[in-house]
Amino acid sequence: MRLESFGDDHAAAHRIGHAEPGRELVLALCGGVGGVKLVLGLSTVLRAGKLAVAVNTGDDFEHLGLHVSPDLDTVLYTLAGLSDPLRGWGRADESWNFMSALSSLGGETWFALGDRDLAVHVERTRRLRAGESLSSIVADMASRLNVAVRIMPMTDNPVRTVVHTRDGPLTFQDYFVRLRCAPVVTAVSFTGVAQARPSPAFVDAVADPGLSAIVIAPSNPWLSIDPILAVPGVREALERVTVPVIAVSPLIHGKAVKGPTAKIMSELGIDVTASAIAHHYRDLIDGLVIDESDAADADRIGVPVAVTRTLMNNLDDRRHLARAVLAFARTLSGTARAA
Amino acid sequence: MRLESFGDDHAAAHRIGHAEPGRELVLALCGGVGGVKLVLGLSTVLRAGKLAVAVNTGDDFEHLGLHVSPDLDTVLYTLAGLSDPLRGWGRADESWNFMSALSSLGGETWFALGDRDLAVHVERTRRLRAGESLSSIVADMASRLNVAVRIMPMTDNPVRTVVHTRDGPLTFQDYFVRLRCAPVVTAVSFTGVAQARPSPAFVDAVADPGLSAIVIAPSNPWLSIDPILAVPGVREALERVTVPVIAVSPLIHGKAVKGPTAKIMSELGIDVTASAIAHHYRDLIDGLVIDESDAADADRIGVPVAVTRTLMNNLDDRRHLARAVLAFARTLSGTARAA
Repeated sequence: MRLESFGDDHAAAHRIGHAEPGRELVLALCGGVGGVKLVLGLSTVLRAGKLAVAVNTGDDFEHLGLHVSPDLDTVLYTLAGLSDPLRGWGRADESWNFMSALSSLGGETWFALGDRDLAVHVERTRRLRAGESLSSIVADMASRLNVAVRIMPMTDNPVRTVVHTRDGPLTFQDYFVRLRCAPVVTAVSFTGVAQARPSPAFVDAVADPGLSAIVIAPSNPWLSIDPILAVPGVREALERVTVPVIAVSPLIHGKAVKGPTAKIMSELGIDVTASAIAHHYRDLIDGLVIDESDAADADRIGVPVAVTRTLMNNLDDRRHLARAVLAFARTLSGTARAA
Repeated sequence: MRLESFGDDHAAAHRIGHAEPGRELVLALCGGVGGVKLVLGLSTVLRAGKLAVAVNTGDDFEHLGLHVSPDLDTVLYTLAGLSDPLRGWGRADESWNFMSALSSLGGETWFALGDRDLAVHVERTRRLRAGESLSSIVADMASRLNVAVRIMPMTDNPVRTVVHTRDGPLTFQDYFVRLRCAPVVTAVSFTGVAQARPSPAFVDAVADPGLSAIVIAPSNPWLSIDPILAVPGVREALERVTVPVIAVSPLIHGKAVKGPTAKIMSELGIDVTASAIAHHYRDLIDGLVIDESDAADADRIGVPVAVTRTLMNNLDDRRHLARAVLAFARTLSGTARAA
């Protein structure tokens, strides 16, 4: 929200406030691997049904004739307890017999699809072709996998992230998986986004009277969060809400934990700092959570800052960061109400 | 071929003739499990490249959004040495993690698709949607799996076997897999067959100057062979060829080894005998191979008969029957030339 007054009381960021009764829904915006760690943390500290996650679908693509939604699947598998803890994508106890057989047939094998994972792609594709919305399919699959979090695509319309590089424009998966983020990025765009609408559940979550905070997970701002914000109406709705909007910086000590965030920032001529992250989300966020290692940057950030350990190596780390984010949100809510 | 004179010298059926030099291509017509055993036998006794197999595609269907060709796959896997020796369908060393995951998602699991098997369905579907013909895809897959047999679908056009029963019309897979052949069959028809054309490779094989014999494998005549014969032009072409057309009876001691052949014959009011099989293929075959156990029926068959052991429990059995069929064909060729 646009708070009337941020104050500059950093200590307030560490005071744990209390949500108003009934106002305990948290909406997270999330991409893949990095952001979902915080989402998992939030899911374990919030009550069942009190977390909604709007997920980037700009990485979605058609592969082998199947509709693949990498970020939605990472969120689904993580919250269902099915994700592979080491790889960071795909499913635990996965087998690769499909890929092996596909290779023998001369099929494309640059994008790995595990045997269990494939069930989601085949079934989702079948249901999409039968006319069902991605939202409806995702909600049903989450329910069948006993996930008590509302998982929703940012949109049911096709939006495709295009990474513009010195080697020309690339589809997201070409850039990310096939070329391993090697090309130098000059810009990012989202094909189809002008015609997209936010998914119904996303609209509902933003308008939910029980909403207490919106959390931008520490996903790549340019590749994973910007597609969500680019869906017409989303940015405006997030600027209008009367609850705090908090981002968690994906940087630690001026570097990305994993993935190309820092590389892309450099290539785009942006300082790889927490304040640059805050600047990227300007007019949108009411607070930024940064890592202890970036504390020196705190004074230049321009919105209230919570400094904590943001590295999430294990579930305790995820829960710790989730609690810190929620506490920070309550503090900002208090500031807002007091303003 | 329509021989001028069959003769009634049954002993001739056991005399081993010799193919004319250069005339050594054998064309087999085949459905699934039963017929493919003979096809495998033929492939091991003929020289590489000298066997062509036209395969029933009336059982093909769309499942989970994938184009499944059960008989083509059984032939492909068997000739590639990949088939499961016990089940009779699907692949050896198969895993079922896709099905297990699909079940958790509430997907349809009545038709079992193994993880390795799935690669063929996904890749074939992708290539069909890209505009490639089924013939071309099958030929390429066979080549990649080092199969030296020309495998071709009976047609590249969609033909779907409908099993008419006392419970109403059923798609083939509903009848065969879901209902396990329980309903009483009243008729069989082939949707789309009037618009179908034989696949180019099938046409080429029939017209091949090197063709020495056509063998109708011991597949179910009504469900597996009739769809092939129903493709416009096929029956006429087979009646016109100047090489022997030989069928192998799928019955042993008046029973089907496996599958519903005998049940369907009874339900259609047909005697479950080798002579009824010959009658079914009348005007088409120049000879029938029957099992020793049905030898008493030989005199009532009306075309030359070869009596041998037709049960194929192992590779030796398959090779034995293949050799007997080829020897019988050579004998009939000799008779034809002598006529």
